[in-house]
Amino acid sequence: MKKISIALIGIGKIARDQHLPAIAADPRFELVACASRNATVEGVRNYPTLDALLEAEPGIEAVSLSAPPLPRFDQARLALSAGKHVMLEKPPGACLSEVGALDEMARAAGLTLFTSWHSRHALGVEAARTWLATQDIRHVHVRWKEDVRRWHPGQAWIWEPGGLGVFDPGINALSIVTRILPREVALASSTLKVPANKHMPIAADLELRDTAGVRVQVEFDWRHGPQELWEIEVRTADGTLLLSQGGNRLTIDEREVALGAVHEYPSLYSHWHDLIRRSERDVDARPLTLVADAFLLGKRETVEAFVE
Amino acid sequence: MKKISIALIGIGKIARDQHLPAIAADPRFELVACASRNATVEGVRNYPTLDALLEAEPGIEAVSLSAPPLPRFDQARLALSAGKHVMLEKPPGACLSEVGALDEMARAAGLTLFTSWHSRHALGVEAARTWLATQDIRHVHVRWKEDVRRWHPGQAWIWEPGGLGVFDPGINALSIVTRILPREVALASSTLKVPANKHMPIAADLELRDTAGVRVQVEFDWRHGPQELWEIEVRTADGTLLLSQGGNRLTIDEREVALGAVHEYPSLYSHWHDLIRRSERDVDARPLTLVADAFLLGKRETVEAFVE
Repeated sequence: MKKISIALIGIGKIARDQHLPAIAADPRFELVACASRNATVEGVRNYPTLDALLEAEPGIEAVSLSAPPLPRFDQARLALSAGKHVMLEKPPGACLSEVGALDEMARAAGLTLFTSWHSRHALGVEAARTWLATQDIRHVHVRWKEDVRRWHPGQAWIWEPGGLGVFDPGINALSIVTRILPREVALASSTLKVPANKHMPIAADLELRDTAGVRVQVEFDWRHGPQELWEIEVRTADGTLLLSQGGNRLTIDEREVALGAVHEYPSLYSHWHDLIRRSERDVDARPLTLVADAFLLGKRETVEAFVE
Repeated sequence: MKKISIALIGIGKIARDQHLPAIAADPRFELVACASRNATVEGVRNYPTLDALLEAEPGIEAVSLSAPPLPRFDQARLALSAGKHVMLEKPPGACLSEVGALDEMARAAGLTLFTSWHSRHALGVEAARTWLATQDIRHVHVRWKEDVRRWHPGQAWIWEPGGLGVFDPGINALSIVTRILPREVALASSTLKVPANKHMPIAADLELRDTAGVRVQVEFDWRHGPQELWEIEVRTADGTLLLSQGGNRLTIDEREVALGAVHEYPSLYSHWHDLIRRSERDVDARPLTLVADAFLLGKRETVEAFVE
């Protein structure tokens, strides 16, 4: 079968660490071109902007967007208008209405739009979902804590409106929660801890409930270290499930569950390939919905100024 | 055809001013019971809570919820779990994830869920939508301003998280905008003016863009008076449309457009009736999506304390 010719937009850390190796390892894609203001990728044609790329490369079928969230909406509009299939790095936009608008554009044009959530492709997530599907769930506790200095050095945009603050990692946890729980969840209350000198929170406590009333308690904190804590604990009538290491380790009642070996980004690209071949969209904005809700309902507390 | 037996929950100002007269005037509904903590309605059976009502009135087919947004999710969950069709006063929840969760519950149970937006049923809205469908739109300007002391006297909950602040009236404008414009809109930026002694904004400026890049400029203000200003102006290549008086007056290039005479709440209930008979849902969370986005992207400015 003919390869799908793609372009990658935004050549930063996540593009080099994850997107480029995943694309290179998948024989069903051919990376033809990249666009980035400052960076170039060897072995492909490089352009300073998506505009210039689309103009010069009419044969490209699909565009993967891995720039920060703020410019993503304009890039995705441009790509869809040019008739390209689109994959969005997480979060799929700076805000939720962007996702709805893009989904409607893609639907009307018959194009594939994929709002990717890499953490959902962590090794333990599908196994956790399968086990939980038949469980009587009693309580869920999400602890997602890391040192912002280690994981986001010098990323000033992350503290600005649109940058999400501690929800930038936290949304990974929410993408797993909305995948593994058998019932829908809604936000009940939210507390945002905002440094005196920043717009976005450095920590947040959320309370969610599922449609049966089960409590989901969420703690996000960027003031944690040195070891990160990325785990979700689900207590059920039959035992306790623990998804840790960002979703890549799974235990049930402290017994290790054996997992597969297809890692996050290769799995994302494989799924995007299937979506394009089947002319389907996969647009799930629920993780970002919970974040927007956390700001809407959020009680703001001012905490100590953050100086990197 | 047999009447649909319904209950009305939350007997406050909006219930007495709008819901009760609209239900009484529609021969296809029979109001059987009400639930309210403090108030009762003459001529029907009254209960202190929805719980008690559902227990005592198994024959009721549908429940209309007009209490403030914070308790609405639990009420709607209860009603759907009991197999009742549900209509939600605007906004359909205290936050967006509630709406998604309720929609999934209703879908799974085969029940009608109607997220009502009364301003969409104002006299000029459908005529505006029809005219705009074929227009080359250049710019949209929303001005929605009123005196909070006149329109929300003593409503302390409106200043708390979940109460929406100036977005409580503003969401009416957004419900019209998302109905009359032919393309989807997304939020681009937001400024929230929050009184020094309150959680929620007293004014807000939003910038939206549609999927073709057309600017939609929005001004909400609760410090306006004595006459309220509830209007939406749309400039097109062929002329200027002005929807004023909350959507009930329509001019195109200053010429008055003749409108029908079915008012907002009678039209809402008529639509709900049709949805129930056809076993359909009508769930549109886009106005609340834009509000949540306005908080997510919002730059907060502290303004003068508000003392009623």
